[in-house]
Amino acid sequence: MSETTKFLLDEKRIPEAWYNIQADLAEPLPPVIHPGTGQPIGPDDLAPLFPMALIGQEVSQERWIEIPDPIREVYRLWRPTPLYRARRLERVLDTPAHIYYKYEGVSPVGSHKPNTAIAQAFYNREEGIRALTTETGAGQWGSSLALACSFFDMSCEVYMVKVSYTQKPYRRSIMRAFGADVYASPSERTNAGRSILEQAPDSPGSLGIAISEAVEVAATSGGTKKYSLGSVLNHVLMHQTVIGLEALEQFEQAGEYPDVAIGCAGGGSNFAGFALPFVRNNIVEGKSTRIVAAEPTACPTLTKGSYLYDFGDTAATTPLIKMFTLGHSFIPAPVHAGGLRYHGMAPIVSALHDRGLIEAVAATQNAVFDAAVQFARAEAILPAPEAAHAIKVAIDEALRAKEEGESRVIAFNLSGHGHFDMGAYDEYFAGNLPDFEYDAEEVEKAIAGLSA
Amino acid sequence: MSETTKFLLDEKRIPEAWYNIQADLAEPLPPVIHPGTGQPIGPDDLAPLFPMALIGQEVSQERWIEIPDPIREVYRLWRPTPLYRARRLERVLDTPAHIYYKYEGVSPVGSHKPNTAIAQAFYNREEGIRALTTETGAGQWGSSLALACSFFDMSCEVYMVKVSYTQKPYRRSIMRAFGADVYASPSERTNAGRSILEQAPDSPGSLGIAISEAVEVAATSGGTKKYSLGSVLNHVLMHQTVIGLEALEQFEQAGEYPDVAIGCAGGGSNFAGFALPFVRNNIVEGKSTRIVAAEPTACPTLTKGSYLYDFGDTAATTPLIKMFTLGHSFIPAPVHAGGLRYHGMAPIVSALHDRGLIEAVAATQNAVFDAAVQFARAEAILPAPEAAHAIKVAIDEALRAKEEGESRVIAFNLSGHGHFDMGAYDEYFAGNLPDFEYDAEEVEKAIAGLSA
Repeated sequence: MSETTKFLLDEKRIPEAWYNIQADLAEPLPPVIHPGTGQPIGPDDLAPLFPMALIGQEVSQERWIEIPDPIREVYRLWRPTPLYRARRLERVLDTPAHIYYKYEGVSPVGSHKPNTAIAQAFYNREEGIRALTTETGAGQWGSSLALACSFFDMSCEVYMVKVSYTQKPYRRSIMRAFGADVYASPSERTNAGRSILEQAPDSPGSLGIAISEAVEVAATSGGTKKYSLGSVLNHVLMHQTVIGLEALEQFEQAGEYPDVAIGCAGGGSNFAGFALPFVRNNIVEGKSTRIVAAEPTACPTLTKGSYLYDFGDTAATTPLIKMFTLGHSFIPAPVHAGGLRYHGMAPIVSALHDRGLIEAVAATQNAVFDAAVQFARAEAILPAPEAAHAIKVAIDEALRAKEEGESRVIAFNLSGHGHFDMGAYDEYFAGNLPDFEYDAEEVEKAIAGLSA
Repeated sequence: MSETTKFLLDEKRIPEAWYNIQADLAEPLPPVIHPGTGQPIGPDDLAPLFPMALIGQEVSQERWIEIPDPIREVYRLWRPTPLYRARRLERVLDTPAHIYYKYEGVSPVGSHKPNTAIAQAFYNREEGIRALTTETGAGQWGSSLALACSFFDMSCEVYMVKVSYTQKPYRRSIMRAFGADVYASPSERTNAGRSILEQAPDSPGSLGIAISEAVEVAATSGGTKKYSLGSVLNHVLMHQTVIGLEALEQFEQAGEYPDVAIGCAGGGSNFAGFALPFVRNNIVEGKSTRIVAAEPTACPTLTKGSYLYDFGDTAATTPLIKMFTLGHSFIPAPVHAGGLRYHGMAPIVSALHDRGLIEAVAATQNAVFDAAVQFARAEAILPAPEAAHAIKVAIDEALRAKEEGESRVIAFNLSGHGHFDMGAYDEYFAGNLPDFEYDAEEVEKAIAGLSA
């Protein structure tokens, strides 16, 4: 047999601390602004929704935040995740490049999302909270929080975008198997939901509406329920850094170091979780890894958006966050990579992009599925459509290396498997998959009036 | 953190040989009989369907059969699979027992089936065959063979039971993603299919019919296509012994040895793959592990069947095999554990049961799903309904240990995850899952006329 395919770490090597890049930024992140007062928000503004421990992590300037043992105890059901050398893909591409991927699909719900779900449930439970609310689109995040709540003996209330609730019954079933209550959103359970249903009884729902419902339930619970978010926020990205920290150790095993590190970016959490430790080494240790975010042309937040203060949700109820945005009223075309259909981008990722510390590339839907199928037939894993964006960029890099006749170490994060997305593959094979471009005029309208 | 959860092996520890229990049986297996001549069949009878290498393995008396490097190369995409200590389940059950499970769901298609699919594709390819045919019920086996054919650059033709073809579109999509041609069976492509469709245009199909179609296509291909079977045969069980061989090494790491080893049994391949190395240690090294096969009360082949010569398929076209059987005309009730709905049992497993070397237990459907959900909420993995039969028996053993106030090491094979079976969980939570018992009179009729 030839050399190693999987770089594994013993569960004792699960990182003992998360990495907080805020400690290594030359300039701090721009403040989050209260839309009413125009002033930076403080912990009290967030307290109705989040436990104090997470609010503290959101603004912490500490470089390392210790991971509590009960969280590491759960992590080790599937962590450390493997780092693969894609030897079969390299042969198919006939490239001198070495391709590696970190595989987060080995988690029990098939993506990186439980890395933060477990942490968020834990900290809420520590502060006496027994119930969490959240929204979910396709269901990746909802099933992760359902799992986390089940493990910390909490109840979980998930508002699932109605069209996905109907189209992806299996994700709903997983949430129920872990004991969560799942409601199609818009629902009759909240003012937000009822007011939408009055105007549009057949509304298919949206992530924006579902957020409004989940937030309302927490905010009006008299403190008994808190709200949980699966991406965008600083503490969420930080919890995901276990991915990149493990990868660093695994590259040591492999005796190589990435020239390029790639992740797909929707809200930014899996991209950041994988990439931030490499960004740190660029900043602090003088490394020069190119860090590339992959996004869909249907929702090209980093490649075509603007760095402005905008709302995090469609309904414009959250604080104002400085981020790359297409405008909170921009509705991305229905690409199958539902996790990448977000008008904005995590403030940390946005700041890194604005400061020239990371790059971004957009890809069209069919090109992404071409890459997904090429990958699957070489490496056997069927990727989620989101993760396939990272594959597409990695394959392009490997082919460029071949053209240039140069070796190169390419690493990407395979954030999840596609077991619940096979309908998208069907459409692809049937030739029914549209290639969407964003509408530049629509974006221009959507960002009008936003300020820097 | 407390002690180890996952016992991992480096990919260099993938076994170098499969274990063939025929070498350690006190008496040989009863011969397979040609239904026309009444005489034992020879290699020539099987040559139209199988390559000579596999026919040789089927009857080999060698204890160890070397695993060719190209097969081990593919195995290491997911092997060695982890052995888990179910510490969280132990706490929930409050049992003094130590519970371990070997997890085969980490394979790219989510079950143990690729262990033999890869081997079968390889040996066919070595003998110049470029196309394989097979049948599949729910799709586990079909997707494994599709993967294997994709890896060895072969075409793959899968006849999928029509009712599953309609109800489980995602499994079909996986096969297509790996490049296989998938046909709903009965199809218009074969005499067998056409004759069924003439009589019953709306036939939902059955595994028996799909086997007839796949066999016909291979048998009438003039030697260009061979047929591949996912269970029952001796060489298939042997390929699966990588499971138990790895587990033995992992138990050495754990410093324990199973008092009980459990697997679910349909055709017998995952059960045997896990259990045979432990059976060997019972026979050869004087160990005394109880070996338990778990089956559904809807299809209680080992617990209620008889040890007789019977056909392997419903249409009565195969050679006669001595096995535990409910009669080849017995149609099991539609339990969701489709992989356990087989009227017979692998000859090796049948002989071990007849000789008192293994035990068997049957469980009802709701009890099995109770166990599946209890397991998922403790260990995070959503098991396939088939594998949940093993979980049910393991939990019962652990509770018995608690009653008796005795420690005990319980091991089971978790043969696959349930990502494509969530519809069954939905029915369970809705309270719509029937508990089936087999019909003793029907079985009596079905075995009438069979001989020992």
